[in-house]
Amino acid sequence: MTTFNIETMAKQSKVASRSVAQLTTTEKNNLLRAMAKAITDNSQQIITENQKDIAAGEAKGLAPAMLDRLLLTEQGIADISSAIIEIAQLSDPVGEVSQLSLRPNGMQVGKMRIPLGVIAMIYEARPNVTAEAAALSIKSGNAVILRGGSEAIHSNLAIAECLHQVLTQQGIDKNIVSVIPDTSRSVIEGLLKQRESIDLVIPRGGEGLIRYVTENSQIPVIQHFKGVCHLFIDKFADLNKAVNILVNGKTQRPSACNAIETLLVHESIADTFLPLAAQALADAAQVKVHACENSIEYFANASLASDEDYHAEYLAQEIAVKVVTGFAQAIEHINEFTSDHTEVIVSQDISRTQQFIRQINSSVVMVNASSRFSDGGQLGLGSEIGISTSKLHAYGPMGLASLTTEKFVVYGDGQVRD
Amino acid sequence: MTTFNIETMAKQSKVASRSVAQLTTTEKNNLLRAMAKAITDNSQQIITENQKDIAAGEAKGLAPAMLDRLLLTEQGIADISSAIIEIAQLSDPVGEVSQLSLRPNGMQVGKMRIPLGVIAMIYEARPNVTAEAAALSIKSGNAVILRGGSEAIHSNLAIAECLHQVLTQQGIDKNIVSVIPDTSRSVIEGLLKQRESIDLVIPRGGEGLIRYVTENSQIPVIQHFKGVCHLFIDKFADLNKAVNILVNGKTQRPSACNAIETLLVHESIADTFLPLAAQALADAAQVKVHACENSIEYFANASLASDEDYHAEYLAQEIAVKVVTGFAQAIEHINEFTSDHTEVIVSQDISRTQQFIRQINSSVVMVNASSRFSDGGQLGLGSEIGISTSKLHAYGPMGLASLTTEKFVVYGDGQVRD
Repeated sequence: MTTFNIETMAKQSKVASRSVAQLTTTEKNNLLRAMAKAITDNSQQIITENQKDIAAGEAKGLAPAMLDRLLLTEQGIADISSAIIEIAQLSDPVGEVSQLSLRPNGMQVGKMRIPLGVIAMIYEARPNVTAEAAALSIKSGNAVILRGGSEAIHSNLAIAECLHQVLTQQGIDKNIVSVIPDTSRSVIEGLLKQRESIDLVIPRGGEGLIRYVTENSQIPVIQHFKGVCHLFIDKFADLNKAVNILVNGKTQRPSACNAIETLLVHESIADTFLPLAAQALADAAQVKVHACENSIEYFANASLASDEDYHAEYLAQEIAVKVVTGFAQAIEHINEFTSDHTEVIVSQDISRTQQFIRQINSSVVMVNASSRFSDGGQLGLGSEIGISTSKLHAYGPMGLASLTTEKFVVYGDGQVRD
Repeated sequence: MTTFNIETMAKQSKVASRSVAQLTTTEKNNLLRAMAKAITDNSQQIITENQKDIAAGEAKGLAPAMLDRLLLTEQGIADISSAIIEIAQLSDPVGEVSQLSLRPNGMQVGKMRIPLGVIAMIYEARPNVTAEAAALSIKSGNAVILRGGSEAIHSNLAIAECLHQVLTQQGIDKNIVSVIPDTSRSVIEGLLKQRESIDLVIPRGGEGLIRYVTENSQIPVIQHFKGVCHLFIDKFADLNKAVNILVNGKTQRPSACNAIETLLVHESIADTFLPLAAQALADAAQVKVHACENSIEYFANASLASDEDYHAEYLAQEIAVKVVTGFAQAIEHINEFTSDHTEVIVSQDISRTQQFIRQINSSVVMVNASSRFSDGGQLGLGSEIGISTSKLHAYGPMGLASLTTEKFVVYGDGQVRD
């Protein structure tokens, strides 16, 4: 067994990043379509390797939900292939020029979108991330280093093998896509030190992983700790819309980070709205309620909410409820407990919805729509590489454009400075 | 003497950042105009305090150039005041909505520009940065924490005192602008740990300061290590433009980070161009030359260039020169030695200039213009808060927009997700 060296891999990725940055859109799309085909052509091989991960996971006693996320079926592999083809169909952000203007001395100045360079992805269980993150990186002109969970190592290497076959066939530097074969924790530490070669780290997984990466990285990190999304039902709300948005936001997929965790209700409509809300939540999913002292009476079997409940990301059929004295208190509560993910107001009053949008600076702010739309696909970004709840570089769901930056371009005709 | 606590200051800044984010453009401009007036109204007081810094500097034996940067005259104070008024005149990036589009389900989705929150500036000697960074932060809706050099502490506190007077008069939270009164190094360490309160750190000063901040910060840092700017004279160059751009780029202000440090010359024009270049550089400023073995014969008293010369940021009337075998070798040299600041091609051939722009991903890429234009003011950004040579968040000269981010805004009419 040869020793794996993360610094060497990072340097090779940096060199490779120059070639992927120079590929034309047509070349990148052809490459992605060939990769999609290679994945389905090699589905038996991938399934065989995936079965090794499943067997190891069972032996290790992984939870059934975890094993389920790990499992690759023929259908799962077809889905990966389709996802790559969808990425090929997205428009290419690289090379787009904006803000072209003439300076007083006749120089033309603009900004051109370019790849970031090398992206490192650190993620847990799901092997489909390996293929999709590679495809998004290639489409945005970046090289990528992938470090999946140890549970999925055989699956990830099998997928990488397909991608490398295609790169080799097409005569392209295969270091454009690298999968770290070493599953030890120490390799992450080493990875996070490669500041000279890697431009951005994107961790995807639980809060623990994201905090670990943030605290140990010398490279900029996209952070998304958690989603404590608020729904504020204003006194001018259309109560029918309010109930639908509440039920959809809370119960449609409670394990998602864009599910509603706290419901704030304006006191002047509490009497009419809360009984409807209680009924709808009970009907939809027997939602467990943690209510403030002014709302607890409306819910059967609710417990009294503590500050801890208002901080909680339940990720379950469970919700915190609070009656607020008015708009200002709703804003104050959100500012105190926000995770900067998504907040929603339901109101028909345009002055109040405009104020909500102006005063709440979470990454996604919504009026009269379900928080479940807070997702790259739903917001029109095409595929999503991750989500940022810190404001630097990207904020909110991240599509291809978030894997790029802009350089200044200047066209002169011999101008010099006085 | 009370003990200074950086964590308390950072938390107060975070609270204050919410109020500055909500000011209207008119309110911010009125505030800035009042600050500009307060600075001139209190010029005597500022000069008195500045004299304390000058006296301490002289006692400490500061270099004359350093004392010169530290000195505030009536004219210097008038210039600070004008700079603040100019910032008031810039257009306000906050609240700008872009990319508004309708999703298939009728929701309207767009992006709205918002302040980052709290900016920390760490800088050396010049006290005018105190006022200008405060003004740029306010205009972009951010709170700011300023940590100037110990040499300028009295001047910085005197300027802050003027700004605080205005904030108090206008009934605005004075923690919008904070100057750290403690000049010890350990306070910087503490500052760089306030991840929960501070959104961005901008160091301005020498490479040592920037590396120190980068290595010790838990908060994202804008990096600008150095400017090793390249000028490539292509075989299809207009030699008259080439000479002017070379002389201007190298000699007009060699201490600037956008000065040219390396000249690359296509071998097929070396015979005609290099004698012109040698003459012009000698005439302009007796520029000291470090030349490759193929160009050394053209320069009087040149020394042979080493790799170290190609890495050097001379910041002086000194230049490295290399003859390249062609376009590809020029690109290769730049990719190897770039500081990602500014690179220039001089050529009349549109295919080659387009290739240069496509292949070089430094933060500013220029065709037929002097590198000295690589500056926020010259490129049309209005005032400049700094420059980034790393690709995350901002790349190149940074204006007001670089002190903001974008959130998603969604206007629905009751939509829920299927």
